[in-house]
Amino acid sequence: MEKLQRNERIAALIKILSDQPNQLFTFNFFVESFNCAKSTLSEDVEILKGIVERFGLGVVETISGAAGGVKYLPLIGQDKKEEIIYRLCKDLSDPTRILSGGFLYMTDIIYNPAVIDNVGKIFAEQFITKNFNYVVTVETKGIPIAMMTAKYLNVPLIIVRRDSKVTEGSSVNINYVSASSKRIQTMSLSRRALKKNSTVLFVDDFMKGGGTVRGIIELMREFESSVEGIAVLISTKEPEKKFINEYFSLITLNYVNEQENIIDLIPGIKIS
Amino acid sequence: MEKLQRNERIAALIKILSDQPNQLFTFNFFVESFNCAKSTLSEDVEILKGIVERFGLGVVETISGAAGGVKYLPLIGQDKKEEIIYRLCKDLSDPTRILSGGFLYMTDIIYNPAVIDNVGKIFAEQFITKNFNYVVTVETKGIPIAMMTAKYLNVPLIIVRRDSKVTEGSSVNINYVSASSKRIQTMSLSRRALKKNSTVLFVDDFMKGGGTVRGIIELMREFESSVEGIAVLISTKEPEKKFINEYFSLITLNYVNEQENIIDLIPGIKIS
Repeated sequence: MEKLQRNERIAALIKILSDQPNQLFTFNFFVESFNCAKSTLSEDVEILKGIVERFGLGVVETISGAAGGVKYLPLIGQDKKEEIIYRLCKDLSDPTRILSGGFLYMTDIIYNPAVIDNVGKIFAEQFITKNFNYVVTVETKGIPIAMMTAKYLNVPLIIVRRDSKVTEGSSVNINYVSASSKRIQTMSLSRRALKKNSTVLFVDDFMKGGGTVRGIIELMREFESSVEGIAVLISTKEPEKKFINEYFSLITLNYVNEQENIIDLIPGIKIS
Repeated sequence: MEKLQRNERIAALIKILSDQPNQLFTFNFFVESFNCAKSTLSEDVEILKGIVERFGLGVVETISGAAGGVKYLPLIGQDKKEEIIYRLCKDLSDPTRILSGGFLYMTDIIYNPAVIDNVGKIFAEQFITKNFNYVVTVETKGIPIAMMTAKYLNVPLIIVRRDSKVTEGSSVNINYVSASSKRIQTMSLSRRALKKNSTVLFVDDFMKGGGTVRGIIELMREFESSVEGIAVLISTKEPEKKFINEYFSLITLNYVNEQENIIDLIPGIKIS
């Protein structure tokens, strides 16, 4: 390959790195791809670090030593994060979203890649240093958010089913009590789904009492694994005492008043 | 903002464009962001076009005129596409995947962002000129693939449920007959889920007789909308006569022989 110009190398660098976020690439990989000297590449990486920082486009990190290299972290920064959460609160508090029974219609938002891509980045940013082995969710509504989170953490996604499926082989099933409805529910996960001694991040769209989380914690225990992080898009204010007491929630839903057509959401991040 | 160097502008350009694939940005947006002349930006864009082409990193497209601008298309090119499909066939034909009943365990692959991101790009590349309004899938296993496809087409995702949910308001429900099992199945979609007169791309992980697709076609008709494209990761060779006769499938499953522990998959793209 003929020699590349600096701007060509830098553009290829950021595209390749950000296509596989949180994935370490060796310097040699790029030295060979670009047919350039290592010192030249180091300069390119330094310039790139400045660019992504300046435009709030994430972080380029270098790791020195024999096992070192360069990787891209999809960190979006405080300002953009607040802007995204504020916008989500605004969109979600539109009174036309109120459904019979005081439920909130939100699938148009939680299935929209343009929105959920950012939520996945925020969740990934929050937990990127934890080096989880998997992201876990339970079907169905949380899957898109969990998928984007897994993408930015660069780990596989596990989807827990509501009943066992012939296409997933032998499975571990558990029963648990829903915190809000007090009904018995089932969760099922293929025995092949995860390796023993894993740590996982549980992601979901909505949390009320936290019963689902407790079910997941119990299910993971069956795989000799543990839930080490919980991230939800919306958690309800009531009940204040949930089955779990440490979680990351982008939005708190105070109440939905069906009679007066009011949805009260608080922007801002809550870790209780 | 002080003046940027060319390599800084180009790196920011490719990152911003590729973070929102298939989204048109005006030249003015970048002229203002970068505080540079329009002619300078045009040169940057031309250089960038060459870079992404050279590294097989997609396509940067300019559209001239008053409603014009620049956008990034996540096209991955024939060579990389073939490599991805070949790799998928290899991974999926591992005989340890055979489950009782001749089913194939594949959730580790179809939920893995590193794999599915590429499948989403291939599907988006195939249908990017059709300007669909939505990507539609039915829960659960096809959701990650459908999500990545929707991301790269830059359109909302719609997830059809197996039964109606209180959290989605009033819904349209249909019954249809599964092509392979001949059993009656249900599909449910919130009345709010899509606008009338939409065209949609149906995405799923697996197709046998095509009964699900026929159900989706019927469901879309209830919304005065139509399925104008079908993309599946794997379709089975048998039955050759499916309910639908035009679809895009990355892999054909010839057969699974449980006794002899053989999975026969054909790489390559089939449009029948």
